[in-house]
Amino acid sequence: MTLLSALAGDAEIEALLSDRAQVDHMLAVERALAGASADAGWISAEAAGAIAAAIDSFTPDWPDLEAGMAQDGVVVPALVRQIRRQLAEPHRAALHKGATSQDITDTALMLQVAAVFDLYESRLIALLSRFDELARAWAGRELVAHTRMQVALPTTWDAKLAAWSEPLQRHLRAITAMRRSLLVVQLGGPVGDRTSFEGHGDAIAAGLAQRLDLGLAAPWHATRDPIVALGNLLALLSGSLGKIGADVALLAQNEVAALRLEGGGGSSAMAHKSNPVNAEALVALARYNGGLAGTLQQAMVHEYERSGAAWTLEWLTLPTMLITTGASLRLGLKLAEQLRLG
Amino acid sequence: MTLLSALAGDAEIEALLSDRAQVDHMLAVERALAGASADAGWISAEAAGAIAAAIDSFTPDWPDLEAGMAQDGVVVPALVRQIRRQLAEPHRAALHKGATSQDITDTALMLQVAAVFDLYESRLIALLSRFDELARAWAGRELVAHTRMQVALPTTWDAKLAAWSEPLQRHLRAITAMRRSLLVVQLGGPVGDRTSFEGHGDAIAAGLAQRLDLGLAAPWHATRDPIVALGNLLALLSGSLGKIGADVALLAQNEVAALRLEGGGGSSAMAHKSNPVNAEALVALARYNGGLAGTLQQAMVHEYERSGAAWTLEWLTLPTMLITTGASLRLGLKLAEQLRLG
Amino acid sequence: MTLLSALAGDAEIEALLSDRAQVDHMLAVERALAGASADAGWISAEAAGAIAAAIDSFTPDWPDLEAGMAQDGVVVPALVRQIRRQLAEPHRAALHKGATSQDITDTALMLQVAAVFDLYESRLIALLSRFDELARAWAGRELVAHTRMQVALPTTWDAKLAAWSEPLQRHLRAITAMRRSLLVVQLGGPVGDRTSFEGHGDAIAAGLAQRLDLGLAAPWHATRDPIVALGNLLALLSGSLGKIGADVALLAQNEVAALRLEGGGGSSAMAHKSNPVNAEALVALARYNGGLAGTLQQAMVHEYERSGAAWTLEWLTLPTMLITTGASLRLGLKLAEQLRLG
Amino acid sequence: MTLLSALAGDAEIEALLSDRAQVDHMLAVERALAGASADAGWISAEAAGAIAAAIDSFTPDWPDLEAGMAQDGVVVPALVRQIRRQLAEPHRAALHKGATSQDITDTALMLQVAAVFDLYESRLIALLSRFDELARAWAGRELVAHTRMQVALPTTWDAKLAAWSEPLQRHLRAITAMRRSLLVVQLGGPVGDRTSFEGHGDAIAAGLAQRLDLGLAAPWHATRDPIVALGNLLALLSGSLGKIGADVALLAQNEVAALRLEGGGGSSAMAHKSNPVNAEALVALARYNGGLAGTLQQAMVHEYERSGAAWTLEWLTLPTMLITTGASLRLGLKLAEQLRLG
Repeated sequence: MTLLSALAGDAEIEALLSDRAQVDHMLAVERALAGASADAGWISAEAAGAIAAAIDSFTPDWPDLEAGMAQDGVVVPALVRQIRRQLAEPHRAALHKGATSQDITDTALMLQVAAVFDLYESRLIALLSRFDELARAWAGRELVAHTRMQVALPTTWDAKLAAWSEPLQRHLRAITAMRRSLLVVQLGGPVGDRTSFEGHGDAIAAGLAQRLDLGLAAPWHATRDPIVALGNLLALLSGSLGKIGADVALLAQNEVAALRLEGGGGSSAMAHKSNPVNAEALVALARYNGGLAGTLQQAMVHEYERSGAAWTLEWLTLPTMLITTGASLRLGLKLAEQLRLG
Repeated sequence: MTLLSALAGDAEIEALLSDRAQVDHMLAVERALAGASADAGWISAEAAGAIAAAIDSFTPDWPDLEAGMAQDGVVVPALVRQIRRQLAEPHRAALHKGATSQDITDTALMLQVAAVFDLYESRLIALLSRFDELARAWAGRELVAHTRMQVALPTTWDAKLAAWSEPLQRHLRAITAMRRSLLVVQLGGPVGDRTSFEGHGDAIAAGLAQRLDLGLAAPWHATRDPIVALGNLLALLSGSLGKIGADVALLAQNEVAALRLEGGGGSSAMAHKSNPVNAEALVALARYNGGLAGTLQQAMVHEYERSGAAWTLEWLTLPTMLITTGASLRLGLKLAEQLRLG
Repeated sequence: MTLLSALAGDAEIEALLSDRAQVDHMLAVERALAGASADAGWISAEAAGAIAAAIDSFTPDWPDLEAGMAQDGVVVPALVRQIRRQLAEPHRAALHKGATSQDITDTALMLQVAAVFDLYESRLIALLSRFDELARAWAGRELVAHTRMQVALPTTWDAKLAAWSEPLQRHLRAITAMRRSLLVVQLGGPVGDRTSFEGHGDAIAAGLAQRLDLGLAAPWHATRDPIVALGNLLALLSGSLGKIGADVALLAQNEVAALRLEGGGGSSAMAHKSNPVNAEALVALARYNGGLAGTLQQAMVHEYERSGAAWTLEWLTLPTMLITTGASLRLGLKLAEQLRLG
Repeated sequence: MTLLSALAGDAEIEALLSDRAQVDHMLAVERALAGASADAGWISAEAAGAIAAAIDSFTPDWPDLEAGMAQDGVVVPALVRQIRRQLAEPHRAALHKGATSQDITDTALMLQVAAVFDLYESRLIALLSRFDELARAWAGRELVAHTRMQVALPTTWDAKLAAWSEPLQRHLRAITAMRRSLLVVQLGGPVGDRTSFEGHGDAIAAGLAQRLDLGLAAPWHATRDPIVALGNLLALLSGSLGKIGADVALLAQNEVAALRLEGGGGSSAMAHKSNPVNAEALVALARYNGGLAGTLQQAMVHEYERSGAAWTLEWLTLPTMLITTGASLRLGLKLAEQLRLG
């Protein structure tokens, strides 16, 4: 639905989360896994070389991947079969050796999130810089404060802009912190205890982490709090932007007129309208992402060593949340550019 | 994300909710509005004819529609501008005369939902028929009942299949009832009181309803409980299917083996696995749709005569819920075909 | 937390949902079950008489009930043990004969909901009547309509009050309809198929329904869509009231001043404030109940023939939702009394 | 509802969040504020002494506080009036001087949360210690791993107990970190910019923080991400315990019998049952708290300098979440004590 996406989506983030991007990252993980496995003596250097070459020249058979996804509930089995077909023996067994679908899927997700974080950070910095600019321009300008939807007492734009910026600075720091706590390799093997790697698991995990520039962690197949914590951070981010959107829509009311918006939205019936479209969208995105965060929480109840139900629930929610948060930042920046004193 | 959609989406429903389908329905609404307006003497018959002709030969300029959506927060202003360009004077003002974007958008949505309901009904009937078939085949077969995750006492497959079918029959009836209560025209004009139609509003609304085969209702721009009630029904539907999915995943456990699944999902690491992929997906979809229903509820708090924030929140949730529910029905049917006594 | 309840709770509904009320209803169910069982020849008339007498003179041992609740996850086993102690042999086995805890708990809940519905209906009628009164008083008075948080065009208070009333009328009808569809007996025995009543189940269920003035239904131990549908209706109700609250808070802004509130809330720091406390509380309650509805949806995924997890989730959410809805109606009425043209 | 609380509540946490505890903390904040204000030269030392004396001998008039809460939407105005009545002139104006209700309410909440954190920490340590004990006792014992609800391959109890403990260790560290980031004073005055303290605001805030053993922060009246982040942590905590509950309920199935529970729940109809009541309750609490976290997120959209709607929504959700999390820890510990190898 490209129309809705034009309003409330984010083409850049959507590209980072596309099927193509996901499969590319999965291929990078299988390639790095082979390299790390060779370094650890778990597969031969020849096998690792053959796998790297096969992956470098690999073109996915998309309909087969879709069929595999529908059949297996995860795309990796079909993907591994496709790559394996490109491999000459005796190297086929070396591909994905000791690993399980979740190792590849989760690690690839971490690479995708790392790319998304880059965009978030640059947008947050741009938005904070815009608020700094406004703070300088509007320094000392009075603003009538409202509490409980009633006129309270005068305050200043300095205070308002500081209140808008402060949580964004906190979220920016949280993203940086989460690079370390969240962006780690997943390597556990079929039942998540690395025994499938017959003693080489820790070394391979370390090598994989190094090759992919990710952190190291114990297997977390069924331990999903870091994923849910990511969702929570996303909701906080879009929530803080939703608060700004709510403020702007209120301050730009015709009767309040503390702000006006350069380039507001038009109406099909009322030519005089200048609608705070971006401000409203920020509120909608905040509520949407907030609700999704509560839904993602349900994926904490992860049965046994791997729950297809809980894991699928993550896939249904988290990518949407990443896009929603991106859209919030995109629109936040757009709105900040539109702000004029009333 | 076609890969995820292959597992947990629904291509048929997605097509019914595509941009193309939405715009086609919007065009149908504008065309019918012109016809009804002419019948009511609000515009001339010539104007209505010219509008119909212009719409019949209309090709949307998609990038312009996307830009309009981003600018105005709703696609109708840009769409009306595009159609108007195809109209010779003096008919331009007759297009969309008295109407507002929300009249077109909401009424078009009703037409889309009507088409989705057709699919739901046929899938529900197919699923109920499959359960009837199983009930005949497994009549009198014992099943060990479990309560609170512990073995309770023997029951029969007759009881289990009846318990699976009964809520689905109820939901089927609810869809039929909702055709009457939900699928109505929206016609209110800019501020939702039909005054913009200068006395012709009720007649035009009646004509519009008749031409589009929708029910008649007072304007409901800011009264969104019918929309949220639709979301609630969707969540109940996928919820009842999620309960079936949970039962199947439990009954198909290797240690319980009351069921086995023909054609279960494979693993990249464990060749012996036959994973209850569709059953798990039903659980995930139920939880997802249930959470979305709670989020859609937030759109009840609709400010003034039209809230861009609350309305956008509907767009973010409801289409996804319609797809999720369709996917639940699709997978429920697929799962029902896989069921074999253990 | 009585302080919060004074603002956002509902003492009358809370009383209807108290432990005492619940246990009284459970006793009524056991008493009626014994009567219906005697009528059906499942237990003797003497036993039914003895059970009625024991229940009529029964005083619960509350600490023992609490301990039983904590131990068994449901209070009925302890309650039955306590009543049984008051019974002389040979009547002890006749108490609760064939039934299971869920039969008693769910049926008692229906009785509680019936009482709550009485209150809802009388409050809805009072509120609609107040809006009718305002509609007469303010007939033809202009109101500036706002769309997307911007001044739109003039409308009338007639339209506004109609828009506030209409969904409430619909919810009132829905409550009436739900009396029939929801308020039914639960009787299934341990595994929900009535086999424990050895052929007398249907007759006993019918007698139980008649004695308790409830409808008749197939056992619904693990079929929870009617319960969730109740939650959805509650959320719609408080949602429609939240919309009214949002409108009032906006219309009563000092800068808009289309309304003023007689007896608004005071501030500890700003003597001039007249805060729209009830309007804001309506918004908060709508969002809260809406979120709870999404959480209650998670209880649809009910494992096997009885899920302790899903059932407990209902208990955590539904009573709160009943209270929240009651509070919304209470505050809606209070707010409607405060409304004055600005 | 004490019965439900016996199963799924937490008497200790409920006491820490009672009206009495809240008002006591509010009194402590007013007392400390007076002290800090005197230190900063904002009120006289005599006034601070008189205020301390009045508060030390203060007994709340509860019905008046309830009435004030209902009237003003916040209890502080009534509370300040009551204390002020105990003060002789000229000290009355010194009480609460420069402050606003939210300063007192939020700061008192921080003190309550600090006390709750103490309990959480000691329970988490006890639970981790119990898992350590089990890890020692069951070292090297095989456990059949299950993925996607199917038998996978053997793993060990060492791995399972490590997977249960690891997120709890992380949450314990997060609580410690949150003591620093969350537990800060709120001091902003009526519109949240400290101007009401006429230059003394920063000094008074610092003194208040020191006297109450809280951190220092800029006013955060309308910046609620730290509160929502607390809710998110609570949901993660109960979510991780819900995962343990789900595992235990599955492992204790009669057909799996990897675990049995010493002292499981009884049934009113089936004497042989040993129901995993605490495990199921952990799942229910996880889903409940997860949903509440999504609802609390809606409070991020905080209008203007203080939103009564958003703030009230916090009150409706956060205390319940604190109790739910406490109950999860309480039951987690109880369940851990019940675990026996099957």
